[in-house]
Amino acid sequence: MHIAILTFDGFNELDSLIALGILNRIKAPGWRVSLAAPSATVTSMNGVQLYRQAELDEIEAFDAVLVGSGIKTREIAQDTAVMQTLARLDPTRQLIGAQCSGTLLLAKAGLLADIPGCTDLTSKPWVQEAGIEVLEQPFFARGNLATAGGCLASIYLAAWALARLVGRDAAAEALHYVAPVGEKEAYVERALGNIGPYL
Amino acid sequence: MHIAILTFDGFNELDSLIALGILNRIKAPGWRVSLAAPSATVTSMNGVQLYRQAELDEIEAFDAVLVGSGIKTREIAQDTAVMQTLARLDPTRQLIGAQCSGTLLLAKAGLLADIPGCTDLTSKPWVQEAGIEVLEQPFFARGNLATAGGCLASIYLAAWALARLVGRDAAAEALHYVAPVGEKEAYVERALGNIGPYL
Repeated sequence: MHIAILTFDGFNELDSLIALGILNRIKAPGWRVSLAAPSATVTSMNGVQLYRQAELDEIEAFDAVLVGSGIKTREIAQDTAVMQTLARLDPTRQLIGAQCSGTLLLAKAGLLADIPGCTDLTSKPWVQEAGIEVLEQPFFARGNLATAGGCLASIYLAAWALARLVGRDAAAEALHYVAPVGEKEAYVERALGNIGPYL
Repeated sequence: MHIAILTFDGFNELDSLIALGILNRIKAPGWRVSLAAPSATVTSMNGVQLYRQAELDEIEAFDAVLVGSGIKTREIAQDTAVMQTLARLDPTRQLIGAQCSGTLLLAKAGLLADIPGCTDLTSKPWVQEAGIEVLEQPFFARGNLATAGGCLASIYLAAWALARLVGRDAAAEALHYVAPVGEKEAYVERALGNIGPYL
């Protein structure tokens, strides 16, 4: 099982790395989580430069794809090579999610036709302009397509992917591990409350 | 104002990068947040390799220092060069915080004498063995020294640093930005409730 978190130049560290940390709580043979990028290194919105762990061009090989967010998403939406790669995504056989401005990329790639979405407050007008109804909630999914809004909703997106790919108990266990001491039960309950209706 | 997040090989991405993302919400001249490491690149517990943004050896120059967590902390606690550098921290003029196993490093550096601390469930026995009383809560601070337990308690540690360095309103604004859509007020309230008693 290979999950890719698409991470572009200007990426928001919270969106890509929270998902990566939570998804990596699964310790099973063949379970792999990768930051996937179009270039060997990418630099975040706050100057953190890191190496990708998978190539974006492997997109058909990923079982699940989460599209991260960042400050350059509107430029990336104009990048023909990237958008042609995203258009190769297949929601009938791949689990697909997007975080904040990543929702704009899924919209522009034609993957959200007739599906409402979540995004952050800054990206909201751009996503609406792309013809998508934006919901005032942190998480929404229909079938294999999910979107989340607000950096820390990346916790819900990752939990949804875990619940879909492994099971609800695995998602709860991962959430319990990462939650603050003394607040673990409440964190798990809130997260499962957000993703439960879509499982 | 230069805030360093100490990040070592084997680091937990959540602990270092959540703090970095939240602290970087401040857009003021001279405000700088850096991942500081002993080597030019460090690799996380899940294989994410990134470049440091500041050298660990600059430790006296940082106004605030947050010690991140990771899977190699017990080895790092045996690294004489790193521990001698940490011993140069001065809580009378620097704001100092630690996340999860980072609490062990502060304890071993002698900075937590007679101060109880927070840490994660795995690190708890090691921190207790170092002579520190471990609290069953996500955050605790006394004066310029703070500790947090559970990966997502990094949100509270970052908010405390913002509240101390800029003000409570700045902390609330940063939290509001990163919180999930539809849950922003509750997130801000919970975080401020955790750090409020220590401001």
